Amino acid sequence: MIYLDNAATTKPLPSALERAARFNGENFFNPSALYRGGLENGKEIADAREFILKSLSLGRDYECIFTSCGSESDNQAVFSFAKRGVAVTSAGEHAAVYKSFLELKNRGVEVKFAPLKANGAVDVKALCDLVGEGNVRFVSVVHVNNETGAVNDVNAIAESVKKIDPSVVFHSDGVQAYGKLPFRLSPHIDLYSVSAHKINALKGTGALIKRKNLALAPLIFGGGQEGGLRSGTENVFGIKVFEYAAREKFENLPAYYEKVRSLNETMKSALDGVLFETISDKDCSPYILSVIAKNVKGEVVMHMLENFGVIVGNGSACSSKNRFSRVIEACGYKNNDGVIRLSFNPYLTEEEIRYAAEKLNESAFKLAKVMKR
Amino acid sequence: MIYLDNAATTKPLPSALERAARFNGENFFNPSALYRGGLENGKEIADAREFILKSLSLGRDYECIFTSCGSESDNQAVFSFAKRGVAVTSAGEHAAVYKSFLELKNRGVEVKFAPLKANGAVDVKALCDLVGEGNVRFVSVVHVNNETGAVNDVNAIAESVKKIDPSVVFHSDGVQAYGKLPFRLSPHIDLYSVSAHKINALKGTGALIKRKNLALAPLIFGGGQEGGLRSGTENVFGIKVFEYAAREKFENLPAYYEKVRSLNETMKSALDGVLFETISDKDCSPYILSVIAKNVKGEVVMHMLENFGVIVGNGSACSSKNRFSRVIEACGYKNNDGVIRLSFNPYLTEEEIRYAAEKLNESAFKLAKVMKR
Repeated sequence: MIYLDNAATTKPLPSALERAARFNGENFFNPSALYRGGLENGKEIADAREFILKSLSLGRDYECIFTSCGSESDNQAVFSFAKRGVAVTSAGEHAAVYKSFLELKNRGVEVKFAPLKANGAVDVKALCDLVGEGNVRFVSVVHVNNETGAVNDVNAIAESVKKIDPSVVFHSDGVQAYGKLPFRLSPHIDLYSVSAHKINALKGTGALIKRKNLALAPLIFGGGQEGGLRSGTENVFGIKVFEYAAREKFENLPAYYEKVRSLNETMKSALDGVLFETISDKDCSPYILSVIAKNVKGEVVMHMLENFGVIVGNGSACSSKNRFSRVIEACGYKNNDGVIRLSFNPYLTEEEIRYAAEKLNESAFKLAKVMKR
Repeated sequence: MIYLDNAATTKPLPSALERAARFNGENFFNPSALYRGGLENGKEIADAREFILKSLSLGRDYECIFTSCGSESDNQAVFSFAKRGVAVTSAGEHAAVYKSFLELKNRGVEVKFAPLKANGAVDVKALCDLVGEGNVRFVSVVHVNNETGAVNDVNAIAESVKKIDPSVVFHSDGVQAYGKLPFRLSPHIDLYSVSAHKINALKGTGALIKRKNLALAPLIFGGGQEGGLRSGTENVFGIKVFEYAAREKFENLPAYYEKVRSLNETMKSALDGVLFETISDKDCSPYILSVIAKNVKGEVVMHMLENFGVIVGNGSACSSKNRFSRVIEACGYKNNDGVIRLSFNPYLTEEEIRYAAEKLNESAFKLAKVMKR
């Protein structure tokens, strides 16, 4: 199997699973318990927290709150800081931010969406203009667009936003960036969401990074875990697998980035330009390559490829039930049901990519012929 | 090690972990993806959902929403249905409900707490009187008190509440009951929270059971997973371990109940009545035995026992940072820092329980002597 849907989810690293296995075995204790095994697990979570912060080059003025997923992190950021006034985001957000913004409307918060450029990046000038209209409390801009891979320079955007209004709270969804792009979080970013299962760790774990002096409200109240900001028994196993996978990613980050850049190049140049139109451009993350199979349905190509053992995505798995993608449409592509999202991991080989490209060309060619008849 | 803190968390069943391992291996796919591996995982989640409902003898008028934990389930129920008017609960709730009720006050909802009897069960007459005061939208009563094991007959309580006001939405936190007590959910209960890691499955998975015709609001918005009621990539591995562990529990439920009842009896009769006062009575779940070490601190006894390889809890792990327990105080015990919570699992032996009781007596005796000097 050649798995090219790594933006949807990734295969957990066996080494990380093995190393963390004891937290489901002899070290299964509740980290809030006061006996040795409990306290030790509390310390293990603290270590994971520290590593996540360090991996983003963050100092003691930031903290890391473990959550159950990137979506939870996004929701907590949005609903905590966009309680009144105006909230601004981009048209290219993941559903976890986009749908939360729609809910804000129901709660009486005015929401504004900045348009996208053709590659899926936010139009920064338009975003800043929206902030300039005043009364903005909260801005959220995705770091890497999960459908096109477009990279928003969130450090610079946050800086521009704060220049217009220093009181704005700035959040970025970093789910498709964390552990992939070389990146240092600037102090202009107040909140940053990350997810474990996008970097070869487990579904069910995420984190919200925040500046310490920001009064975040809990989304889940209870036992007071995570400094009172996220209650519920800590998922020690999930958190440790996250840490171990993140360590592996950050130890190899430049090499993995280069490798994936090369895989992406190979794919792009091997795809037949007559059959495919490329949405992702050179400014996009190499981890995601979004293309349109001309005049054919992406879903049909996907199913044909499956029979060759090649797994590709069609748009975001999180909105797979919708035929047309809101984000791809916002990039200016109207009838976008030919969209195929190819997303990579650094463990793939050039040979696998060439084989996948060959099968993509073959399938799209066959389908286009059928369509013509 | 003799682990007697099973109300805090339990050791995951190796058989369940093994059986589900493929969901972190070759079947790691995102269940929202439309290719075979994704669809198959979607089906696996549907199977788990169906089993959970069946295990509570529920028909097609109920549904099961997977969440990240019991606390999330409780929070979603509370914040979804207690939006205005009055909300009533007991003084014996887990922090996930109790703290959510305190938050309701901040949001302008009037909250009322029914008092407890000495064993930790809610005073049903007092609760019904509160409902009778009018304007009540939401009532939540814990099924099994997590500190004393007191069983509230939530089916009967829900029926009484609905007789007073049929429009009330009734929720019960079933975290310490599910997979332990023989129980059929009555149609008077609208919502029921369960947790995986209390029945030898994993931390990071829970579920909220609800009547289908109730308009539950999401707590986490996004990709629309779980029928739009709980977004975020589904934790397939956690959900399947939950299902497999639950199957094991329900296949053996009467035998396990009997076994634990016997272990509890052995412990109770072996504990020295001069040194220990028992809070839990015969109407409590056999899975929890709460006692007070007279004139000594529970935490100190706990640490002494640790050196003998016996692990006991002191109150709820979720509120372990507070010296006095709000719930034990509501049972009428004022200076309750001698509280020790012994909580069982069906895999323990009578011999282990006798050894633990001996060490409990020894430790409390030694400490009491030190205290007298």
